[in-house]
Amino acid sequence: MHPALPSPITAHDIAARLDATLIGDPSTTVCRLASLEGAQGDAISFITHKRYLAAARQTLAAIVLVDERLAPELSHVPVRLLVPDPYVAYARVSQWFAQLLAGPDAAAGIHPTAILAQSAQLGSKVRIDAGAVIGEQTVIGAECLIGPGCSIGRGVTMGSGCRLDAGVVLYDGITLGERVIIHSGAVIGADGFGFAPSKQGFVKIAQLGSVRIGDDVEIGANTTIDRGALDDTVIGKGCKLDNQVQIGHNVQIGEHTVIAGCTGIAGSAVIGSRCMIGGGVGMVGHLRICDDVIIGGMAMVDRPVTEPGYYSGGWPLQAHAQWERSAVLLKQLPALRQRIRSLSTLVGLPKDPS
Amino acid sequence: MHPALPSPITAHDIAARLDATLIGDPSTTVCRLASLEGAQGDAISFITHKRYLAAARQTLAAIVLVDERLAPELSHVPVRLLVPDPYVAYARVSQWFAQLLAGPDAAAGIHPTAILAQSAQLGSKVRIDAGAVIGEQTVIGAECLIGPGCSIGRGVTMGSGCRLDAGVVLYDGITLGERVIIHSGAVIGADGFGFAPSKQGFVKIAQLGSVRIGDDVEIGANTTIDRGALDDTVIGKGCKLDNQVQIGHNVQIGEHTVIAGCTGIAGSAVIGSRCMIGGGVGMVGHLRICDDVIIGGMAMVDRPVTEPGYYSGGWPLQAHAQWERSAVLLKQLPALRQRIRSLSTLVGLPKDPS
Amino acid sequence: MHPALPSPITAHDIAARLDATLIGDPSTTVCRLASLEGAQGDAISFITHKRYLAAARQTLAAIVLVDERLAPELSHVPVRLLVPDPYVAYARVSQWFAQLLAGPDAAAGIHPTAILAQSAQLGSKVRIDAGAVIGEQTVIGAECLIGPGCSIGRGVTMGSGCRLDAGVVLYDGITLGERVIIHSGAVIGADGFGFAPSKQGFVKIAQLGSVRIGDDVEIGANTTIDRGALDDTVIGKGCKLDNQVQIGHNVQIGEHTVIAGCTGIAGSAVIGSRCMIGGGVGMVGHLRICDDVIIGGMAMVDRPVTEPGYYSGGWPLQAHAQWERSAVLLKQLPALRQRIRSLSTLVGLPKDPS
Repeated sequence: MHPALPSPITAHDIAARLDATLIGDPSTTVCRLASLEGAQGDAISFITHKRYLAAARQTLAAIVLVDERLAPELSHVPVRLLVPDPYVAYARVSQWFAQLLAGPDAAAGIHPTAILAQSAQLGSKVRIDAGAVIGEQTVIGAECLIGPGCSIGRGVTMGSGCRLDAGVVLYDGITLGERVIIHSGAVIGADGFGFAPSKQGFVKIAQLGSVRIGDDVEIGANTTIDRGALDDTVIGKGCKLDNQVQIGHNVQIGEHTVIAGCTGIAGSAVIGSRCMIGGGVGMVGHLRICDDVIIGGMAMVDRPVTEPGYYSGGWPLQAHAQWERSAVLLKQLPALRQRIRSLSTLVGLPKDPS
Repeated sequence: MHPALPSPITAHDIAARLDATLIGDPSTTVCRLASLEGAQGDAISFITHKRYLAAARQTLAAIVLVDERLAPELSHVPVRLLVPDPYVAYARVSQWFAQLLAGPDAAAGIHPTAILAQSAQLGSKVRIDAGAVIGEQTVIGAECLIGPGCSIGRGVTMGSGCRLDAGVVLYDGITLGERVIIHSGAVIGADGFGFAPSKQGFVKIAQLGSVRIGDDVEIGANTTIDRGALDDTVIGKGCKLDNQVQIGHNVQIGEHTVIAGCTGIAGSAVIGSRCMIGGGVGMVGHLRICDDVIIGGMAMVDRPVTEPGYYSGGWPLQAHAQWERSAVLLKQLPALRQRIRSLSTLVGLPKDPS
Repeated sequence: MHPALPSPITAHDIAARLDATLIGDPSTTVCRLASLEGAQGDAISFITHKRYLAAARQTLAAIVLVDERLAPELSHVPVRLLVPDPYVAYARVSQWFAQLLAGPDAAAGIHPTAILAQSAQLGSKVRIDAGAVIGEQTVIGAECLIGPGCSIGRGVTMGSGCRLDAGVVLYDGITLGERVIIHSGAVIGADGFGFAPSKQGFVKIAQLGSVRIGDDVEIGANTTIDRGALDDTVIGKGCKLDNQVQIGHNVQIGEHTVIAGCTGIAGSAVIGSRCMIGGGVGMVGHLRICDDVIIGGMAMVDRPVTEPGYYSGGWPLQAHAQWERSAVLLKQLPALRQRIRSLSTLVGLPKDPS
């Protein structure tokens, strides 16, 4: 349960903000956002699907965000706010409450221990926290927030309204769009992994490209996105990358694609728009994945995907002893197939087409 | 081989510290801890299982930690220290020697380049290293050690005796128990990965919960633990997380559970106590794993586990050509099964129950 | 497309630098390096294999690096530079151009906000950036570059010509060879993951070993390499580790071995020289992999490899519905095998050897 808001909010004010239809007493107040099960009488909650109706019927929430279709089932709730999409409404309330809980923003300004290169340019109302370092020729848009200890290289361009949490690293020459959020420990623009084998060992291929990140992208903690070898690595607008994602050099990702944690995309892969890629996925380099593809968690993407749809891979969990048996049999599959062929021949079954 | 201790330690002193029974000359000295194979005459070693007896019979160690059962086999070792659990005794000696090797602790105190908010409260004997940043209303217990460049947000609560190595990030509002160890680059409390899809793209769901970490938890380098969406992400006391582990929002982990490196746990998973989860595991969100479960490395945990035991998954390594053949046959399994059914019908074998 | 060089370079100068045979006008100039497809008339490009001949025949590049064998096919290119290995030549040109693009190096010297311990020793022309911290007894070789916010512990030894990007952490006692490159967020020398179970919970095993890294090693962003328990973790010279690689304690890696991103190597594994390990691989601890082994991406290395060659594992991507069917059949493999045996008995096929 998150801390209470500094002062309660009325149902009327929430309805006004969301452009919602209010059923109940508009002076009802709440000071928390909670799940249907976790809500007490001081909370607003939300229902996004009829499978949660059982929980909704027992909720103690004072206000529930609900769509027209499910609203009749929630007549016991003191206040219903009718919205077309309760999940989006919940998201908007969460952002509002987060602002109220954070209190007034620390004043814009440059912390005295931040190090700004002389030629760096800052937009209005930029805040730069303790120990951050900003390189030459770097341009930071209005109302950006650079957390403590960030290291921003030379020639970086950052649109307005970006937020970099503590300890983010942007190498030289990176471009961010507007309202990009980058969580702590993410590293954008390290050298791609490229070496030419020679008799004297590997010769490093300098990575001359950069990274371009579109508007409204969010990048998780400790995620890494490498700069391109010759051209740029590109993350399209609206993409959301979770924590510990690894994006190799020259990768291109379309718009509004989501990648869950611990997924690695090898160099020069091209991924479409509106894809949803699960966690722990590994994608081979130089592949193309079309728009609107869903990849299940832990899948090995070892071939291109040319049709939208849902794809998976990965060995399902088994009791260890069963897994051991399956693993042995997997290796015996060629022998089993041969056995089936012998049997077929023996009994005169027509030839197996496989 | 680690550097020699600044001054040798007698068998007598070690026995006293471990409450061990000493067989041999108590004035024997050592200045190193080593494996049975690596030990020279200046070292103490240990034997934890009879399968190491061959190595033990050849060891040059001056002192060996051994239990009563195996002690008779080691009569050639100058000094035997009888302890109930030689592995635990080794652990305790390692901690002691580490302290001696580190020399006197740097004095407690705040480095002049650290940035402390005015309302931050520090317990006695706290040490805060260069460039660390501590936010408003944050409370740091006695004898905590905050490494260089750490970024500790607002409203953080840290029990006594915690150690944060260089560059750890704690976001606002995180709670740590006592004696928590966090290695460099770990990020605790970044936003969970939550977005509501809408026609205008994804709408961010602000993450209003926090992270609570119990006593004696250890967290590896570059591990990430996200804050909860509404409630808190919880890591129970005594848990040990290796490097590059990813814990999604709202995850709850019981007590004394161990998670090896590179494992990712998706949001809202609930994991019991005393579990041992291997490296590179991926766990789907919203699952429940009961107490006392062992998960083998690289497994995809795609279903709940309700019985204690050992579970695995993952395709065992093969020569590439064999793997290619197995992979083809895996896709042909439905056809193979059909073939077996046809054969069974043809020869009049009773219907396959599968 | 990377920015143009500050001033154009002649074919003559490039040929001289590479010791290449020039066919064409030596006064031809370029100001960019580009792929065959991406090149305009101001670019130099390269061809590494005959499968790129179609692209090469259409390239607009002013200069192409090519070997003797393919050179006759590229007679339309204004300048051909004949080199024995065009990929290595490309790597060398990329390094040269990277230097030219970076402009004159920031002057060597210590940034006033860097914190140097009194007993630290610096070679000539060392550059230490803002906010970096260098511990007691640490020795840094000539011409090393320590990026902003790096944290270098006590007793570290660093050969000449090393480059540590922003925010790298080296724990106490680490040894680097010469010309080691470490990208941002990498953590070298955190405690290995070792605990002795006891009735009171896990007892930490102090990690007394260190990490030794050979000459010309490159380590990717957010990669972690743990220190050894008793002996050292060792990375041999010329090894290249990509981003987000995890190396457990006591691991030993030979020379010129390459490990792609997101791969985890568990403790005490021993890996040979000249191995190529794909991305997302997980290797069980205490295994030995011989020299000259290639491991495909996402493989689970669950057994030792004693013969050089190419090994793989991992479930190939399937449409989700097909994957579900395969996953069910995988669990039914024992039943299918039994069925085949029954059939064989029934029809009198000689006993299956498997």
